[in-house]
Amino acid sequence: MSKNFDTNIAKTLDQTTIRNVESVVPKKRQELLKWYGWGYEDSKFHIDDYSLFFSGSRYPIGNDVELPNFRDWMGQKFELSVLEKPKLPTTFPEPILNETFYNTIKDMKMDYSVDGEDRFIRCHGQTLHDIYNIRANKFKRIPDLILWPKCHDDVVKIVKLADENNVMLIPFGGGTSVSGSITCPQDEERSIVVIDTSQMNRLLWLDKENLVACFESGIIGQDLERTLKDEGLTMGHEPDSIEFSTLGGWIATRASGMKKNVYGNIEDIVIRVKMVTCKGVLERNISAPRVSCGPDFNQLILGSEGTLGIVTEVIVKVRPLPAVKKYGSLVFPNFEMGVSCLREIAKRRCQPASIRLMDNEQFHFGQSLKADNGLFSKFIDSLKMFLLSKVKGYDLMKISVATLLFEGDKEEVEKQEKLIYEIADRYSGLKAGETNGQKGYVLTYVIAYIRDLGLNHGIISESFETSVPWDKCLSLCINVKACIESECKKRGIIYYLVCYRVTQTYDAGACVYFYFGFRWDSDCSDPVGQYEEIENKARDEILASGGSISHHHGIGKIRAKWYKQSVSPIGVNLYKSAKLELDPKNIFGLNNLLTEEDQINFETLNSKL
Amino acid sequence: MSKNFDTNIAKTLDQTTIRNVESVVPKKRQELLKWYGWGYEDSKFHIDDYSLFFSGSRYPIGNDVELPNFRDWMGQKFELSVLEKPKLPTTFPEPILNETFYNTIKDMKMDYSVDGEDRFIRCHGQTLHDIYNIRANKFKRIPDLILWPKCHDDVVKIVKLADENNVMLIPFGGGTSVSGSITCPQDEERSIVVIDTSQMNRLLWLDKENLVACFESGIIGQDLERTLKDEGLTMGHEPDSIEFSTLGGWIATRASGMKKNVYGNIEDIVIRVKMVTCKGVLERNISAPRVSCGPDFNQLILGSEGTLGIVTEVIVKVRPLPAVKKYGSLVFPNFEMGVSCLREIAKRRCQPASIRLMDNEQFHFGQSLKADNGLFSKFIDSLKMFLLSKVKGYDLMKISVATLLFEGDKEEVEKQEKLIYEIADRYSGLKAGETNGQKGYVLTYVIAYIRDLGLNHGIISESFETSVPWDKCLSLCINVKACIESECKKRGIIYYLVCYRVTQTYDAGACVYFYFGFRWDSDCSDPVGQYEEIENKARDEILASGGSISHHHGIGKIRAKWYKQSVSPIGVNLYKSAKLELDPKNIFGLNNLLTEEDQINFETLNSKL
Repeated sequence: MSKNFDTNIAKTLDQTTIRNVESVVPKKRQELLKWYGWGYEDSKFHIDDYSLFFSGSRYPIGNDVELPNFRDWMGQKFELSVLEKPKLPTTFPEPILNETFYNTIKDMKMDYSVDGEDRFIRCHGQTLHDIYNIRANKFKRIPDLILWPKCHDDVVKIVKLADENNVMLIPFGGGTSVSGSITCPQDEERSIVVIDTSQMNRLLWLDKENLVACFESGIIGQDLERTLKDEGLTMGHEPDSIEFSTLGGWIATRASGMKKNVYGNIEDIVIRVKMVTCKGVLERNISAPRVSCGPDFNQLILGSEGTLGIVTEVIVKVRPLPAVKKYGSLVFPNFEMGVSCLREIAKRRCQPASIRLMDNEQFHFGQSLKADNGLFSKFIDSLKMFLLSKVKGYDLMKISVATLLFEGDKEEVEKQEKLIYEIADRYSGLKAGETNGQKGYVLTYVIAYIRDLGLNHGIISESFETSVPWDKCLSLCINVKACIESECKKRGIIYYLVCYRVTQTYDAGACVYFYFGFRWDSDCSDPVGQYEEIENKARDEILASGGSISHHHGIGKIRAKWYKQSVSPIGVNLYKSAKLELDPKNIFGLNNLLTEEDQINFETLNSKL
Repeated sequence: MSKNFDTNIAKTLDQTTIRNVESVVPKKRQELLKWYGWGYEDSKFHIDDYSLFFSGSRYPIGNDVELPNFRDWMGQKFELSVLEKPKLPTTFPEPILNETFYNTIKDMKMDYSVDGEDRFIRCHGQTLHDIYNIRANKFKRIPDLILWPKCHDDVVKIVKLADENNVMLIPFGGGTSVSGSITCPQDEERSIVVIDTSQMNRLLWLDKENLVACFESGIIGQDLERTLKDEGLTMGHEPDSIEFSTLGGWIATRASGMKKNVYGNIEDIVIRVKMVTCKGVLERNISAPRVSCGPDFNQLILGSEGTLGIVTEVIVKVRPLPAVKKYGSLVFPNFEMGVSCLREIAKRRCQPASIRLMDNEQFHFGQSLKADNGLFSKFIDSLKMFLLSKVKGYDLMKISVATLLFEGDKEEVEKQEKLIYEIADRYSGLKAGETNGQKGYVLTYVIAYIRDLGLNHGIISESFETSVPWDKCLSLCINVKACIESECKKRGIIYYLVCYRVTQTYDAGACVYFYFGFRWDSDCSDPVGQYEEIENKARDEILASGGSISHHHGIGKIRAKWYKQSVSPIGVNLYKSAKLELDPKNIFGLNNLLTEEDQINFETLNSKL
């Protein structure tokens, strides 16, 4: 088999240019990151009798400055009940080890661990379901062995050995999946081995003439950008998870970045990918910018969600750092006018690096996160004065706010700003300043922490997203909100929140993000189940309203039931045929994409072989 | 099986909006188009004792105006010997008909023909190999039956019937393939049925709000653009074959358009595709602009080259027609400076709609096509004066010329022009006027006719293309030219031409087109074989120099031998697994992409079933 492994990327590397990257995330992930929720351990919302704070100094709202507005807002929306801080378990399931595999790994001097804590914290991603279950220590099955390969060749060895010994493999990057895709299948009887790619995070080479770079797949977003920044470059891919998610994970899930208008989504950035499969390495032979050479198998790797193989090395486009980065914001009298304005900007293809539009509910929610430390101006207060004094007819309870990010050289940014504000003016969009724009983007990174705060206090919340053609954008937002409200009422849920925003715009449509949270009744035995029931209804409504099953989170396990209708039965069969071709023993047995009834019966299949 | 056929696109059609398109190409193709070469029957180069002309009034160089410079240029390059005009054969191979299939088709009242001429002219594409063989009436196997379905549902019926009766199907669009992809496999023993999509060319609906349109796949490029133009819109996809090639063909081959900098290549334009396969219809369920929903199977359809199924309906992006369309040209002291300038423009991502760069040899070739009718200024003469009088050091035998096409509103175009000419100035690029730019683009459409003129006079010529990273662009051009020259010398070929141009630019590289022609010795029994030997050497050199096997023509049959090394053995197996999944009987038996030794043995396979 080894002759199939084409190492021509590796051969072209100039060894002197390899850059080791000191990652912000240590191998002992749990020392820096929460195992029971999102993000840095030192960064979280916390609450005392009277006040709410965000701890740590990593984010502008942090430093334990009081957030009185957020407390007031939560007071209006929910009634809090405090739960205890989760404690890491002290006992763990015994690892199921495949003797030959385990011994060979040890002989190879591969970096490994069978420590319970190391295994426990890598059994899940970041869905509400995952976080709830990990806090309650409900996972029956956790990984049995963690491996930290150091390079592509290590991975080739691991995959070959796993295939020979029928050991299941899970590629683990940043652990930020919100589709259940990296969660251990709970009925897996084979030894489950996690390939943690975190120690495979080098910059292998950088080609400033062609503006391309080759990274190992385990590099974390913020490490990658910091490394490129030292060279005056950027890749420009900024998903909301950029602090923790990895290049390999972006490829596996078809990630989208906030600044895709300038830099493209992950499929536009990636030139060449190396994926190690049980049958050898899948890769195109050259780095040409565009080819016509039959079906594009890069597009099979993108979105394969860890089920076909593991990405090891990636050649990506890079760009010079922009000279100017400038924020902006706009206030529209209502969400409808905002959408019309975004649609016009997209039609004229003059989107700045990022343009996002919040509905009124989300605007108020965002405002509540304003600290009294003077970092952000008192937007609502000043805005209220402005709207009342200068412009009649803007209702603070109806307005919608867009945040803008411009990147380019000084002249370009000035031109862009001028054009955007001119167009906005025709849709009654008022300039609302840079600070408010910047604040919107800070919110992006902080919002994921709020889910965990809620969980501590009896509030379940989660976000989900879709893409939709322009003409259906508004009706989809309205329908989905109405659907959730109706489902809450049916269940007697009194305290809840539904809000949404447009986060990406395209020629033919947009990406819409929904946020939904509710306070569960103390007598509700399965709040996560209740949440999922409601989200399922909302999902059906999204599809009925012309939206897609996902714009960038992917299918994983939690959206598998909509996969067949999204890609047609023929599409499902095509995926299965690729799976059978590359992984007939289901070594990459994460069982994503397919429902239980659509799963390939590998046991029957392999008993026949 | 029929329940698998999801007709939800068809259901959403507003029947009142369907637009029948009167195609420029009639059903009796041979009445308008050459069966023995490229393009319109009335448009061709012809020659008398002393002069050379281009007939017909379709192109600016036509109207039988003498082209004295071209005669002189050819005189310098080659020595002409005149062959006779090809005559359509009067007898044809008896059609091999599958009785059940044929009778059912007749019962269905499907439009069909078993006429020898109809079958003969549809047995091939436009490779040199095809055209040489069709003129010499060398094809052993031609289609047995031609069908003209009128809509998606007709195609569904045909494919089902073919699958049931083991009849081979060939999708036939514009017949312009230059990869051998639609050429009948000469050893096919089953009945070969061509599905001619020309009568499936309607605009099904147009959505001006979302700027998307749904066309049937058989619509020809110029018909599509004319139909959209009536609505003030354009799709903007302009391959050099736009006069004859079809939307479905563009998808099957992963076509690239001249103006991709504004409108994108075909994969950027297509939102949703319906492909009829033997197992049902493959399509995504919604028209959302971007999704993360597992592997993207649109990308399996793109580049499938007629071997997995037949595309019937396509939803594409459209754009408002630009207010201004303006040509331009630049003269560089040499090709190297031109490439550096194009690279800088690409780096700054400010490419106009089209930017192309000719080497010196091609520049002179293009100049030779100047008529004496005053349509184009005497570029060389005026340029010579200009270069000699104002700028020292420009050698007419070394200069390289770029042609430019700007599209946008007046202000945008002015800005673009200013920027491009500013950048060009830094690379010693001199403005050379609009007329010369426009002339370069006319050449694009006329150049394919020259191959046929050559064939009439003992000159074999053909073009081929590749894509290459920027840093290897120049060395690839030099290496490939040297390789061809060396191969010509080895074979004692005295009269030949090799020239090249950069036709597309990207962030990470460019597309390069080569033109190669030579006069064959009267004692050469197989000039096409000789040509192919030399092109094969050139191909190997392209790959060795870091180029791809194809930027946009595809693999087909003539480039199959490089497919495996381009996509890795795993890639070949993935293609095969998709083929086996969708078409286990090889109904779409064109046998493209795979070499003879890599072909799936369907006979053995099906005898086992």
